[in-house]
Amino acid sequence: MVESELYPLLLESGFHVPPFRRFALDEPFEIDFYPIALKVESPKIVHKSDVGGVALSLTNGHDAAAARDKMISSIREHGIPLNSDDGFIATAMIQGEELFAGVVNDPIFGQIILFGKGGVLLELYRDVCYIDTNADEEEILRSIRTTKISKLFEGFRGALPMMDSIVAFIQTLQRFIRTHPTIRECDLNPVIFNPQGLHVVDARIDYHSTPTLSEHPPRIRHNFFDNHTVALIGASNDPNKVGYAIARNALAFSGKLYLVNTKGGNFEGTPLYRSLCEINDTIDTAVITIPSCHVIETIKELIPKGVKNIIIVSAGFKEVGDTQSEERLNALAQKHNLNIIGPNCLGYYESTRNLNLTFGSPTIHKGSLALIAQSGAVLSSLMDKAAQEGIGFSHILSAGNMADMNFADIITMLSAAPECDAISLYAEGIQEGKAFLEALRRCSKPVRIYKAGKSPQARKAAFSHTGNLSGDYPMFRGLLESVGVKIVDSIEALLYTRSFDNIAIITNAGGPGTILTDTIIERGAGLYTLNENDIEALDGVLPSNWSRNNPIDIIGDARSDRFNAALRCVDAMEGVDMIYLLITPQLMTDTLDIVRLLDSQWNKPIFPILLGGAMMSKALLYLRERSKPCFTTLQDAGGFL
Amino acid sequence: MVESELYPLLLESGFHVPPFRRFALDEPFEIDFYPIALKVESPKIVHKSDVGGVALSLTNGHDAAAARDKMISSIREHGIPLNSDDGFIATAMIQGEELFAGVVNDPIFGQIILFGKGGVLLELYRDVCYIDTNADEEEILRSIRTTKISKLFEGFRGALPMMDSIVAFIQTLQRFIRTHPTIRECDLNPVIFNPQGLHVVDARIDYHSTPTLSEHPPRIRHNFFDNHTVALIGASNDPNKVGYAIARNALAFSGKLYLVNTKGGNFEGTPLYRSLCEINDTIDTAVITIPSCHVIETIKELIPKGVKNIIIVSAGFKEVGDTQSEERLNALAQKHNLNIIGPNCLGYYESTRNLNLTFGSPTIHKGSLALIAQSGAVLSSLMDKAAQEGIGFSHILSAGNMADMNFADIITMLSAAPECDAISLYAEGIQEGKAFLEALRRCSKPVRIYKAGKSPQARKAAFSHTGNLSGDYPMFRGLLESVGVKIVDSIEALLYTRSFDNIAIITNAGGPGTILTDTIIERGAGLYTLNENDIEALDGVLPSNWSRNNPIDIIGDARSDRFNAALRCVDAMEGVDMIYLLITPQLMTDTLDIVRLLDSQWNKPIFPILLGGAMMSKALLYLRERSKPCFTTLQDAGGFL
Repeated sequence: MVESELYPLLLESGFHVPPFRRFALDEPFEIDFYPIALKVESPKIVHKSDVGGVALSLTNGHDAAAARDKMISSIREHGIPLNSDDGFIATAMIQGEELFAGVVNDPIFGQIILFGKGGVLLELYRDVCYIDTNADEEEILRSIRTTKISKLFEGFRGALPMMDSIVAFIQTLQRFIRTHPTIRECDLNPVIFNPQGLHVVDARIDYHSTPTLSEHPPRIRHNFFDNHTVALIGASNDPNKVGYAIARNALAFSGKLYLVNTKGGNFEGTPLYRSLCEINDTIDTAVITIPSCHVIETIKELIPKGVKNIIIVSAGFKEVGDTQSEERLNALAQKHNLNIIGPNCLGYYESTRNLNLTFGSPTIHKGSLALIAQSGAVLSSLMDKAAQEGIGFSHILSAGNMADMNFADIITMLSAAPECDAISLYAEGIQEGKAFLEALRRCSKPVRIYKAGKSPQARKAAFSHTGNLSGDYPMFRGLLESVGVKIVDSIEALLYTRSFDNIAIITNAGGPGTILTDTIIERGAGLYTLNENDIEALDGVLPSNWSRNNPIDIIGDARSDRFNAALRCVDAMEGVDMIYLLITPQLMTDTLDIVRLLDSQWNKPIFPILLGGAMMSKALLYLRERSKPCFTTLQDAGGFL
Repeated sequence: MVESELYPLLLESGFHVPPFRRFALDEPFEIDFYPIALKVESPKIVHKSDVGGVALSLTNGHDAAAARDKMISSIREHGIPLNSDDGFIATAMIQGEELFAGVVNDPIFGQIILFGKGGVLLELYRDVCYIDTNADEEEILRSIRTTKISKLFEGFRGALPMMDSIVAFIQTLQRFIRTHPTIRECDLNPVIFNPQGLHVVDARIDYHSTPTLSEHPPRIRHNFFDNHTVALIGASNDPNKVGYAIARNALAFSGKLYLVNTKGGNFEGTPLYRSLCEINDTIDTAVITIPSCHVIETIKELIPKGVKNIIIVSAGFKEVGDTQSEERLNALAQKHNLNIIGPNCLGYYESTRNLNLTFGSPTIHKGSLALIAQSGAVLSSLMDKAAQEGIGFSHILSAGNMADMNFADIITMLSAAPECDAISLYAEGIQEGKAFLEALRRCSKPVRIYKAGKSPQARKAAFSHTGNLSGDYPMFRGLLESVGVKIVDSIEALLYTRSFDNIAIITNAGGPGTILTDTIIERGAGLYTLNENDIEALDGVLPSNWSRNNPIDIIGDARSDRFNAALRCVDAMEGVDMIYLLITPQLMTDTLDIVRLLDSQWNKPIFPILLGGAMMSKALLYLRERSKPCFTTLQDAGGFL
């Protein structure tokens, strides 16, 4: 598309373009918008500069005419004959900051807008943000504000605040995409930003022959978490089998549990049914651990039993190359309105009826955090850590290969589940990105996500591991943050649900207190500022050389009595929302007695940090045995904020 | 300074400036370098634009004369009478990328050059690097390459490589600073970069009335690490006292040890001398733990004994506001050529004579790492961790308040110490930055540094804690990296001395393997690529569904025999330089047996990672009891790379 065709298209789509006019080959110039750029327009010429077909900064008609004449002879010298189809376009040269806006077609998220600093610096600084085509104004603003260049739009150094124009520009681009659903790629580069607004100076648009990927609207589903009658297909007495571990964990279920094994007999006193026919009851939830080749026939047998929810633990599907069976699973789920989790997963836990259908940790504390993970090993590690540290769950879901239920479905259900207060998700590959974003947008609860596969090397590992596309990390992070998700940098941070703005640090060491302060600030959390009353209160119980500042350095010779006095004081401070108890192994430190203080009742959450090694091991063990959280490095301690 | 004075100064200093000419008030224009900018020059006018005294993009003499006439009338309208002192400066307008170069006067590092992207984006992107005035060409290059804009100088997108001009420009600026030692601040902004080179278009220079801070040249010192006869002043039988802990640790010294306590008696069979007079021997090294008020008189008594090295553990100096005593200590050290460490420190360890004069961990493994720390608590934590994980030291130095010996002195000595292969430093505040940089430049060994006090909040805490200036973190990091130091992000990383380029991961879990891959790549370390022979070897011992890729996923049901087979294979691969053994708690994982494999002899360093909690605790304990390193989170595992 040549500029004189492109500009009208952009204009009618609602963009601003610079003043322009096309002239025939020897038409005289009549222009009222100098200075101009003059370019030849001919289907015969692709690279205009190469044939002397571009002239910039022309300030008057005389210069422009001279430039045109020079251009014509230069093009003739290059052996290109010009005729009546050819001509010139004159465009006003406008000054301002070069921006970039573009549309890409992402295999996961579909059409996505990129916006940021343009020109040669686009590639150097990559100061761009990602905006979904369905993003509303608030989401657009949140995205734009992640760029550094956005300060220019908000009145940087006394400039006119122009954020409204920027948002309007993005909304124009959203409409443009909606009316051009076959756009494969579009670069508006540069877009010139100045006090008059945004002007698209050049554009390149590629179209697909057909509209781009469209996602299925999410299905209206039964509530997955409503489990009264559960059957375990593949319960086993062999302790090396998954069916053994799940059966052991499932025994505590407060609903009705049926264990099925073709061999019959019993499992720790509970009868083993030889087949589903033997069960004279409806079954709302089934967990399947038998070999993959028998899974589909088993589901067909479950359907007449009224099954709604199926957890397929069995492996041997997409991850070993069998995509066909997963398509059949998906079709079955569609046809009979089933909720299927897996295959190739670690199972499922739900707290209200104490239903542990996982082969992970047998100890699960009840709580209000829902944890979803795409890797069974990450899930089992986190469950094991949570068991040790007393962290409780409302739901645990191992997503597996996601043949039917994907993250969007799961998040939508969790958003409606009253037992769940917060959601954490470990993701490797994503399906149906737009539905995923929409589910997160509608989710009423705080969501934390860890995404693996940031580097190309890791994406290769993730793909060979789950067969799901891992995608571009900056885009993933940008889009998810724009819908309000907190992206965390360690899997352990998925076990925590809140951030803190008024943290107090009580410590027997200045240096580590300084480091922890840095970590807190880097994470965007906040340190509480002691007021006069606080300082007076602490003066009353601490030696005179305490830091009189937060971190509250109670000096290296502090023993448990002084730690206790400081804790009592700080625990009573209204503004404090969390306390780090940072203990280092100094000469007289009675670490075990200090951590024993945590057995008392306290108002605020207190997180002990035991910095060191051998000298801290007894105290660490003491806390572990009591299922209390405890950190051993400052990085881990700050990592969940 | 007006432009027509500034430009000649810059020219004679070796900078390029645009072509320029000054004209008297009604002198006719004769210019051969259009387009030009025209500005009024008058001592009566500070803000030229405000009175219409600037015209840009003038392309010919006619326009220029018109602009001058318009300017004169506009200035008259503002009520400013022009006379023969006043005139105009015409400067050629040159196109190109706007850069910035500047000089600041840092309280720690003195005069330092800043260089990077200029214009309005300077503040938005802060894409600048820091260059010492003494930096050589290699150091300058290393600094410049940390900026993103530097890609433009290296032939980005087919542009002419121009790095030589950039380095020459910085060297010109270095010479300029040397000949103008009173520069307090200098901004060359913008400096226009184009294929013709760098042109300083505008400059602002502030001078001090006197030359800026000059540092003392470092003193030629005795070797601190040569300790044959050691006296501990303040040895004590009271287990709550520092003098007790140091005496206990010092007993293993293979040289001659004298314990001094005014009460006399003995310490675990070793006599306690009442005073130094009682000792009929020279003393080369003394450690002092007695109250601060007696420290100086004690040193005076030690001087006749031939003392060379003094470690002052006693607190109560600068950190409580007493700077005077530290000045006296410094003067004593200068006068008698003493090496004084401290005061307010944790002590000193030296491996060749097994001299542990610290009150930190009594267990210190011998090794080749020298650890220096400005915080006693950080040091004691790291010593405790090192004891637990079998990490050995050649030297340990608690720097304390640095009344005499500072980091520059210590690093210079360690660089010459044959027992030391690598140096790690925990720093809060720095003194004499130029000497510090010079010591690091000359140091022949790899140096790792952790710097606390990145955020303003932490700098406040650090200052109240040590009384030393913490400084600007990006400048610190930039300058230290330019002299080849590795800046680490956790204090634990100080315990490790090398990075790895060919890491292999053996794991029973794909997800965590993916995360660890990300961590390795983020840290700039490298993952080994399996070749055909490697894959064939692993095919021979692993089940067919192993990942056939590094991370080597040996599948969730792997037990110790399979881990052993994989380890044997990978340990024999020539290209691998380190192995992570990443274990997650799966159903059949015999974690304790797996970590027992580490009791065998292996060729490569192997770092086990036990991901999880309760189910991993026995294996963790097993490794701890054998002083073997072990990580429990993926972040910590990658943190030292």
